[in-house]
Amino acid sequence: MTRKIVIIGGNAAGVNAANAARKTDSSAEITIIEREKYPAYSRCGLPFVLGGEIPELEDLVVFPSSHYQLMKIDLRLETVAKSIEPKAKTVQIEDKYGKTETLPYDSLILSTGAAPFIIPIRGYDLPQVFAIRTIEDGRKIAQIMEDVKAAVIIGAGFIGLEAAHALSEKNVKTTVVELLPQIVPTMFDPDMAKIVQRKIEEHGVDLMVNSRVTEILGNKKVTGVKTEGKEIPADLVIMATGVRPNVELAQVIGCETGVTRAIKVNMKMETSVPSVYAAGDCVETQNRLTGKPSLIQLGTCSVRQGKVAGTNAAGGYATYPGAMASAVSKFFDMEVGAAGLMERVARSEGFQTVTGAVTGRTRADYFPGNEEIRVKIIAEPVLGRVLGAQIVGGEEVTQRVNMLAVAIERGMTVWDLAKADTAYAPPLSETWEPVVLAAEVTSMRIRR
Amino acid sequence: MTRKIVIIGGNAAGVNAANAARKTDSSAEITIIEREKYPAYSRCGLPFVLGGEIPELEDLVVFPSSHYQLMKIDLRLETVAKSIEPKAKTVQIEDKYGKTETLPYDSLILSTGAAPFIIPIRGYDLPQVFAIRTIEDGRKIAQIMEDVKAAVIIGAGFIGLEAAHALSEKNVKTTVVELLPQIVPTMFDPDMAKIVQRKIEEHGVDLMVNSRVTEILGNKKVTGVKTEGKEIPADLVIMATGVRPNVELAQVIGCETGVTRAIKVNMKMETSVPSVYAAGDCVETQNRLTGKPSLIQLGTCSVRQGKVAGTNAAGGYATYPGAMASAVSKFFDMEVGAAGLMERVARSEGFQTVTGAVTGRTRADYFPGNEEIRVKIIAEPVLGRVLGAQIVGGEEVTQRVNMLAVAIERGMTVWDLAKADTAYAPPLSETWEPVVLAAEVTSMRIRR
Repeated sequence: MTRKIVIIGGNAAGVNAANAARKTDSSAEITIIEREKYPAYSRCGLPFVLGGEIPELEDLVVFPSSHYQLMKIDLRLETVAKSIEPKAKTVQIEDKYGKTETLPYDSLILSTGAAPFIIPIRGYDLPQVFAIRTIEDGRKIAQIMEDVKAAVIIGAGFIGLEAAHALSEKNVKTTVVELLPQIVPTMFDPDMAKIVQRKIEEHGVDLMVNSRVTEILGNKKVTGVKTEGKEIPADLVIMATGVRPNVELAQVIGCETGVTRAIKVNMKMETSVPSVYAAGDCVETQNRLTGKPSLIQLGTCSVRQGKVAGTNAAGGYATYPGAMASAVSKFFDMEVGAAGLMERVARSEGFQTVTGAVTGRTRADYFPGNEEIRVKIIAEPVLGRVLGAQIVGGEEVTQRVNMLAVAIERGMTVWDLAKADTAYAPPLSETWEPVVLAAEVTSMRIRR
Repeated sequence: MTRKIVIIGGNAAGVNAANAARKTDSSAEITIIEREKYPAYSRCGLPFVLGGEIPELEDLVVFPSSHYQLMKIDLRLETVAKSIEPKAKTVQIEDKYGKTETLPYDSLILSTGAAPFIIPIRGYDLPQVFAIRTIEDGRKIAQIMEDVKAAVIIGAGFIGLEAAHALSEKNVKTTVVELLPQIVPTMFDPDMAKIVQRKIEEHGVDLMVNSRVTEILGNKKVTGVKTEGKEIPADLVIMATGVRPNVELAQVIGCETGVTRAIKVNMKMETSVPSVYAAGDCVETQNRLTGKPSLIQLGTCSVRQGKVAGTNAAGGYATYPGAMASAVSKFFDMEVGAAGLMERVARSEGFQTVTGAVTGRTRADYFPGNEEIRVKIIAEPVLGRVLGAQIVGGEEVTQRVNMLAVAIERGMTVWDLAKADTAYAPPLSETWEPVVLAAEVTSMRIRR
């Protein structure tokens, strides 16, 4: 009998699930239900379209429609899942014309994603207040961009800073307001965040930490925002205040959610409801280092989880081992990245910590184009195990983060890492790789 | 009593040894004996000066002379060690004026390096035949470069290809002649070497594999080279045919040498002669994966070994854990790198092998500037352990090699690596990192 797989949500997790399902079962009926007009596109790419580095919003779409035809995936765009009957194993859907249909399933995959958290302050519903989550958001911002002279971004995480970069590329006077005492508060320790902040400020962007936006000003049209002490003129406001997992459908049918309020899954991405899988920004992930529940809403997790869910939903066997929270970004000509635990998080998890950092160069000192790079390592000070790492500036930050993520995952100590046999050529690196030196500096702070 | 440390050879290993010794013992008398006019400089940088990427040969000198003053290192340039009396613990040295002196030592470090292997064919001693090993070599080549129209490079390893790049940057018609059936024969498997070869040939360089140079033609002046089947006109010949460890002094005093004919040392870089250490291109290294003796003459090994030797020679304690042979290079706008064992070497070591390779992109598909990258993985096909990896093309090759070196060292399997949690941002990488995909492709070839 033909296996019927229904996937609710056709973005990173959903489409990777569909692809994996197809590879596992060549004859399955695979249907994707997607609320938006576009199938799987790169949300992470939105700020880069706004900044002009990518020409068109449509460039972000990952697969052409021919892909779905080729893979025999029934893609239903602008269609929503209204309800699920887990006992009957059916999903009720409705398209944009209001036409409803009941789809039976053998396996159901919830890849319902996450929605931007919009702070419900006065003025939040003015037409020049946006999140940067969908192509529609991008289009609307792009439409008014030409007339925008000043913008306020609420939230100084990666997306907020990428948006700030995009706006300042377009010569928009930009202010970023962050509630917490530092920028990138979920990724960098205060010392590293301060370096990032200084470099961004050099580009003329105002970064206000420790500041709460209390009101968005304007009547029909945004004219500014009010913080506790100040009014900032603006004709565009972007809320980059994180996303919250979309779990309503899951909860209605009884899927357990976890401490993070996201959907609980096992290693096979099975929810607590039989034949129902979940993947992507809507699920709770295990931190690969601590083994504890964690909300790690990254594209890399989504595609990997989707692949596992799709394989299992189609009768195969695959497992997802949790995430290391490896993340990178690029803004204001600066690469930044991190893996593992921040110092604060490591402490709150009960670890003792020791840290070490070095500022080095990315290539041989005499080689033109070499850049400054700062590497910080967080380790456990008795056994010396590396717990986390942060990098600011330089080149090849992504792959350094990957090396560190592998090192952390494999339980390397700072002594091990200080002896890593790294590769060297004058145009590409230094004989003493900054990651290796950071490990050494950290190790020297451990009493043996 | 003040400890006396004498270091014979003031390049990467020797100077790192001196620095480490000074950090370990602030009052030791440290003397470096160096044959050349310059202290520690980057030999690896020589081709890049010839190609014009680095302005001056002197830029390659690592530390200014003030460094040696500051570190209280007695640097004796243009001075040679004539003999050693290991029982009396003295070294006899002679400076460029013929003045001799006897230096007593408590610890002696042999960082005597390696000398280019010059094939003793007819014409090898013509004045336009060079190695690329010393600043003097670089200076002599640079002096005649303007008049050179055609060059032959013997040997298609990294240095030969870097030299070919430099020459073709200067519009010299360049031919590289390699004895073996492939280029980069000690670094890449034939399939990966072929890709590199094709890309180099696109730049107008002739690569002749399977070819032996039998004679260098010319009377007083090079006019060409003769191979078994052909005469190639040339007014410059570069021999990039590897280097051989300088072990004469070591052998005279009874230091054991190994199967690689280099000086045998233990983890502390101690030779078999009491109080005599050795480090750098003159020593035999253990391959970190197999544990077997290996001749790995890389700058990264030299600096690490020198540091260990210097620390121990000064009464500290440090160990060197062998090398993974991580190596990278850049030529003809192409980055290439490798870590661990090549397929052929893995087989000759008695491993069964399975391989997998993917061609991917370095950034999100839609992001401008993304480049093609090919990653190959060599694994053991029963337990799936990663044995080696090779990368051709793309960006961030060095740090990918480093990630793979860490993975290999920590015994990761292709299944582990296929689940590595890599970092993603559209301008920097892909959600499915090519290294991860290569591991997955390899894993799919293993029957479980």
